[in-house]
Amino acid sequence: MPVGLGPLPTLNPVPGFRLGIASAGIKRPGRKDVVIMEAAEGSTIAGVFTTNAFCAAPVTLCKKHLEHAPRYLLVNTGNANAGTGKPGMQAAVRTCGELARMVNVQPEQVLPFSTGVIGELLPADKIISVLPQALSNLSESNWADAAAGIMTTDTVPKGASRQVTIDGQTVTVTGISKGAGMIRPNMATMLGYIATDAKVAQPVLQQLVREAADLSFNRITIDGDTSTNDSCMLIATGKAAITEITEAGSAAYQQLADVVKSVMLELAQAIVRDGEGATKFVTIKVNGGGNRDECLDVAYAVAHSPLIKTALFASDPNWGRILAAVGYAGVPELDVEKIDVYLDEVCIAQHGGRAASYTEEQGARVMAQEEITIRIELGRGDYSETLWTTDLSHEYVRINAEYRT
Amino acid sequence: MPVGLGPLPTLNPVPGFRLGIASAGIKRPGRKDVVIMEAAEGSTIAGVFTTNAFCAAPVTLCKKHLEHAPRYLLVNTGNANAGTGKPGMQAAVRTCGELARMVNVQPEQVLPFSTGVIGELLPADKIISVLPQALSNLSESNWADAAAGIMTTDTVPKGASRQVTIDGQTVTVTGISKGAGMIRPNMATMLGYIATDAKVAQPVLQQLVREAADLSFNRITIDGDTSTNDSCMLIATGKAAITEITEAGSAAYQQLADVVKSVMLELAQAIVRDGEGATKFVTIKVNGGGNRDECLDVAYAVAHSPLIKTALFASDPNWGRILAAVGYAGVPELDVEKIDVYLDEVCIAQHGGRAASYTEEQGARVMAQEEITIRIELGRGDYSETLWTTDLSHEYVRINAEYRT
Repeated sequence: MPVGLGPLPTLNPVPGFRLGIASAGIKRPGRKDVVIMEAAEGSTIAGVFTTNAFCAAPVTLCKKHLEHAPRYLLVNTGNANAGTGKPGMQAAVRTCGELARMVNVQPEQVLPFSTGVIGELLPADKIISVLPQALSNLSESNWADAAAGIMTTDTVPKGASRQVTIDGQTVTVTGISKGAGMIRPNMATMLGYIATDAKVAQPVLQQLVREAADLSFNRITIDGDTSTNDSCMLIATGKAAITEITEAGSAAYQQLADVVKSVMLELAQAIVRDGEGATKFVTIKVNGGGNRDECLDVAYAVAHSPLIKTALFASDPNWGRILAAVGYAGVPELDVEKIDVYLDEVCIAQHGGRAASYTEEQGARVMAQEEITIRIELGRGDYSETLWTTDLSHEYVRINAEYRT
Repeated sequence: MPVGLGPLPTLNPVPGFRLGIASAGIKRPGRKDVVIMEAAEGSTIAGVFTTNAFCAAPVTLCKKHLEHAPRYLLVNTGNANAGTGKPGMQAAVRTCGELARMVNVQPEQVLPFSTGVIGELLPADKIISVLPQALSNLSESNWADAAAGIMTTDTVPKGASRQVTIDGQTVTVTGISKGAGMIRPNMATMLGYIATDAKVAQPVLQQLVREAADLSFNRITIDGDTSTNDSCMLIATGKAAITEITEAGSAAYQQLADVVKSVMLELAQAIVRDGEGATKFVTIKVNGGGNRDECLDVAYAVAHSPLIKTALFASDPNWGRILAAVGYAGVPELDVEKIDVYLDEVCIAQHGGRAASYTEEQGARVMAQEEITIRIELGRGDYSETLWTTDLSHEYVRINAEYRT
């Protein structure tokens, strides 16, 4: 069960953005595994992509197509089309081409996305054969079905939606995401699709998706594995009756940015809450760093330590493992005597050692919670970073040992 | 059961080096948890230590004492005396002082070592009270008992021994090690004690232990967690009738170094074979790197990926996860088309994609083995690095979730 994740909230339709779903039987018969999204003519689209050098064929193609006024997004699950060489690229090109032909746009106006097993050739024919089915049910009200259609090892669909008034007009931001394993920045290491009916110039939209991803999808980690495929797309249809946002500094930009960031953070945290085998939702906050990088180094060292993750799973306040991880994070000339560590508001370590006031009962009480904040005060400067992660459970091992069986 | 690890081999006594064992009931009553080692007068001792900024009190003290012609090593398990602040340092100083008093040496001539739970105060009184017991059974034949006496979560004692003829004389090198979790360089992240009756000048001995550690203990990783405590000590008693080795370039140095490296590699690999929950012994070989660091970055990315480790546990040739890890290892301008990956001699990926000749059966056959070599050819230069690791099993989670209960 996802940690603290309720049923899918109401996902408001975004004027000018339609979604269609089909079942191609790529990995399992009957499962919804193909989603088409259609952005109205005149939409702008921006995206951020995995930094993995082995990025998948669809990622490479998608980056190229992004420059050609794209109109359609084509997503399949069950197969990542990564590590598949030239035949993989040909398969990606062919699915884009076939969809383009059916809807009468240029092949470059289709953005491809694949997620699933790495290294198996994309079954392009299966996908192509169900494109008419997906096109036939394109609708602005299909967000929930699309959220289900992009799931892989996710146990629940993930979505978030907000509205804001800009220039006296209601502007909607709605998004869906998927991902539960192989989750680690740097980059939007999952699939995320967020649409708004605001009108935003493409370079500004690109800046916005980058900023928002750095505060959300780029601050979550489940297992430290950066995927080959993952992509986060922000689509602005321009159907709301507001002036086009052409400057990142404008008031309208700020209003929209706040809502987009909030939606993306909710989507990113939902991925952690549904992390493979997760029984805890853990916030790691590092304060007092001399710079941003050292805050992140410490936060990731803590987030990725299997010893800390198993202690979290066991609700064991084994704070020594936290100190050890801070100690090996690679911060130069770290003065351990300045370091304090908190579990929620309980000070467990002070000046680099067990806090005098600390009792095992206090630690055990916090660790028993489903949601825990580990706060580390470095005492070196004014920088802070926050990231979100999970514990490491038996279930994680089971899921990933049995993934392909 | 440790992977491919037989019963403890014959551990040849090292003239001039005696070991004594006692039971102080630090963590569990009746368990051997205190070991004293005595090096004959005139011995030289060198060591390498954890790089963790939160190094434990005994590590700090040991580094200092190393400069004062040490004669005794005092090891306890069950408590790491790390993250314990000033009281921890006082406890370490007191145990050294008491042992020194009993054997009539200076307190600085005792080297302290602790391993076990972090953050609990060392029960110095318990340890001190059994020092006479350990001293009473000091013997050159006690290596096997000492190997058992330094165990924590280890399932078997670990030792290795070799003899070599130098200057017509038999020279012995015998060592023991412990460690099964929180194992990751950089440094001899465990406890290791290797003694020889060769006569070696201290600076040369220091160079030798550093070189040998970089080829053995610094090339193993189980969970990526660098411990706060671990130390590897090399002791030369000088009792063999050979000329003192005073130059690292000499023939005698090379002969001794070969044997020391071989013993330390066996001890290091034994730690991996007995890794917490390990069901596989995995060699990761990265060839064709442009420099040493990028080889290690790739090797550690593969060794630490929970997704690869769970696939190894499941004997699943999910080679896509290997490609993904290579891709996110952070090698600058990595040309994925030059990358080949092998499981033992089976080429699974060529030019960055699935090898044309590869069949799932070939991969499954290798993955079913207890010992597997993952070889990655980067095609960028002439550097190579090798490290050794384990899989990630249910048992690892169980051990570390229950460690303190």
